[in-house]
Amino acid sequence: MSKPQKSLIALLAVLLLFFGFVVVRIGVAKPAAAVKVTKIPAGEYDPAVWGQYYPLQYASYKHTTDESPSPTGYGGSIKVQKSEMQPELTMLFKGMPFSKDYAEDRGHEHALEDLRESKRIGPASKGACITCKTPYVEQAYKEMGWGYANKPLTEMMGNAKQTIACANCHDPSTMNLRVINPAFIEAQARRGIDVTKASREDMRSFVCAQCHSEYYFEPGTTKVIFPWDKGVKPADMYAYYSDKPNGFAQDWQHPDSKAPMLKAQHSDYELFSTGTHGKAGVSCADCHMPYTRKDGQKYTSHWVTSPLKTLGDSCSPCHSQGTAWLQERVKNIQDQTFELQHMAGQNIVKAHEAISAASTQPGVDEAGLVRARELVRKAQWYWDLLAAENSMGFHNPSQALNTLGQANELAHQAIEAANAAAGIKMF
Amino acid sequence: MSKPQKSLIALLAVLLLFFGFVVVRIGVAKPAAAVKVTKIPAGEYDPAVWGQYYPLQYASYKHTTDESPSPTGYGGSIKVQKSEMQPELTMLFKGMPFSKDYAEDRGHEHALEDLRESKRIGPASKGACITCKTPYVEQAYKEMGWGYANKPLTEMMGNAKQTIACANCHDPSTMNLRVINPAFIEAQARRGIDVTKASREDMRSFVCAQCHSEYYFEPGTTKVIFPWDKGVKPADMYAYYSDKPNGFAQDWQHPDSKAPMLKAQHSDYELFSTGTHGKAGVSCADCHMPYTRKDGQKYTSHWVTSPLKTLGDSCSPCHSQGTAWLQERVKNIQDQTFELQHMAGQNIVKAHEAISAASTQPGVDEAGLVRARELVRKAQWYWDLLAAENSMGFHNPSQALNTLGQANELAHQAIEAANAAAGIKMF
Repeated sequence: MSKPQKSLIALLAVLLLFFGFVVVRIGVAKPAAAVKVTKIPAGEYDPAVWGQYYPLQYASYKHTTDESPSPTGYGGSIKVQKSEMQPELTMLFKGMPFSKDYAEDRGHEHALEDLRESKRIGPASKGACITCKTPYVEQAYKEMGWGYANKPLTEMMGNAKQTIACANCHDPSTMNLRVINPAFIEAQARRGIDVTKASREDMRSFVCAQCHSEYYFEPGTTKVIFPWDKGVKPADMYAYYSDKPNGFAQDWQHPDSKAPMLKAQHSDYELFSTGTHGKAGVSCADCHMPYTRKDGQKYTSHWVTSPLKTLGDSCSPCHSQGTAWLQERVKNIQDQTFELQHMAGQNIVKAHEAISAASTQPGVDEAGLVRARELVRKAQWYWDLLAAENSMGFHNPSQALNTLGQANELAHQAIEAANAAAGIKMF
Repeated sequence: MSKPQKSLIALLAVLLLFFGFVVVRIGVAKPAAAVKVTKIPAGEYDPAVWGQYYPLQYASYKHTTDESPSPTGYGGSIKVQKSEMQPELTMLFKGMPFSKDYAEDRGHEHALEDLRESKRIGPASKGACITCKTPYVEQAYKEMGWGYANKPLTEMMGNAKQTIACANCHDPSTMNLRVINPAFIEAQARRGIDVTKASREDMRSFVCAQCHSEYYFEPGTTKVIFPWDKGVKPADMYAYYSDKPNGFAQDWQHPDSKAPMLKAQHSDYELFSTGTHGKAGVSCADCHMPYTRKDGQKYTSHWVTSPLKTLGDSCSPCHSQGTAWLQERVKNIQDQTFELQHMAGQNIVKAHEAISAASTQPGVDEAGLVRARELVRKAQWYWDLLAAENSMGFHNPSQALNTLGQANELAHQAIEAANAAAGIKMF
């Protein structure tokens, strides 16, 4: 080969390397890590056994016991009462277990222990509570169907030896992603989605969605149900609770307002999947379980935690602005969300108090009180959809802020209705 | 060269072309179009003269006369009264010109004509109103300083032969970007920004910001002032209006509530620059004046309009999801913003009514009424910052929704304060 020819090849190769580097940096191509599959026996729920064959994944999973606050000041994997930042919580959940104990969630490996130690459980608690705390739910449902949900919680906790672990999301023989929460499988089926036929990309969200979603316990059976039949937006789910004939009436009655209340639960998936990241095809795992490297080997992190703690791995593959910039943007959204959440929560407390005061007035309009109670029920459920959610609005900022704005408006309407019921005519 | 060597070079060249294509598609590299500069005489404000030398830019500028609604249903370059979608506007601006005529803005070439035909102007209107409607403001300020602002509007409109055009944003001799609104230049100077030293990228926003910003007329002089001394966030600007000693009291007094009101103006730049696009270094021109092509020649579109009409050119260089997807995301944010805006606007009307009714009560607490008026003033200004803004929240969704949520809360606080002043004790 002549010298100029060699130089030409060298130049082309250098340019190719450069462009290849740019493309990789901006995340156009990112193949899944290749992992040698070892068949684990069915029913093996101990993550330490799985960990022998998947040491990197297991080592990262063990980090779920790490305890640290979020860098932006909202939440974190720490056992701190949410009422420290939002004293209104104690009044809002008066008369039900969340007023006694409402700590931030810690990581997956703490799940069963935190359930056992929760002041929210008692002798009357049911087996349904183990649904999202252990892979044993697979065996329990196989053996008893939904019967496990109505057994005493103590009995089911005795059977459940393992906290949330590998088997919650992986088929032991193929390592394929799978879901085992029957409530999620049924809810998706009612929406026409067969989870056994879902794409890998969908499964990278479904494994999280099987637990990080809103649900209620069916009265009598304690069966876990996701209220998704009309859709997953706040108005859709509230319509499900409101319109269903012979449907779900309440989680508890607020002792002051006597309103029939709903407790919302960590609707991370509902909020995320209707937001920009979700609509763009980003999965939960893309951010919460980023690809990472040890000694040159690429693997999926199983330290499932706030991406704020892993901004470089979680966000930078798509967003090139640098981690300080990214964190500031998230904090900005979270500050704006918290401001409305705190405001709405305090006004909902006032609504309960107003209804309570109005109800003691002689000649009070009972129908008017019923309207006020419906308004405070809806206000608090809208507020709680965000308050119980784990991203402080980041999963879907515009939906979060709109929902909190509506919750606050409903609280004021409840106050006005209570006053009207007591004959107080406002200008 | 041997055959394998030739093949290798060919393969490398093909790969290089491919990666190069990918990089260009995702917008890593995008050089400005090269345009031959022709010196235009200073003081030549007629765009048709400039257009002889810049025909592509001029032809696109002429599209600013096009009239069409926005594809998402909010705003557009059409002369339709905003009160059609928001009947509350008529009550909110009672007693001031915007209650008589508050049409959507049409394009730049209509600006002077729309000022002339506006029902908001009258014999008492001042020259300040031409500031953002014509390049003649450059000459007027050179000749009279701020004196032009206090002259009769009719006189200044007589001098201003040209509507918004090339000279508003370009130096005629170099075609460099420039700003000519003295209010913007002064406001930036007070923030420590010398606009003559701004980068080209900053200037691609400053040329828009010189007019698409909040302002007020200084009482007595009618000098145009941007309230940016404490910052450009809603709370910063409100603090400027509230805290300034001997400062700006009001644009008008609302005839029902007697509250001292502020009219907010199209704060597009303030909202945008503090949002994610602005913080990421995207300029106004990047979206509103996208690079486009005619007969293979690349140029900057001067059809300054909603990017929803040019999604492919405006958004696709950075966002690869396709125009239908992009439009749906924008509409989602806008729907959520409009919902809170409409809600807050209606409650602010109720606040004016409540204060009005309370003020007629015998023995009313006058200090309480003052508090109620301050609350409705703030509520309406927060609401108006978004209502007068041209993106229906898109320029900064979380800031928009947070501000509207606060506006609605302030409206309810005003209602409560009015009732309290009249001795009506609410539960």
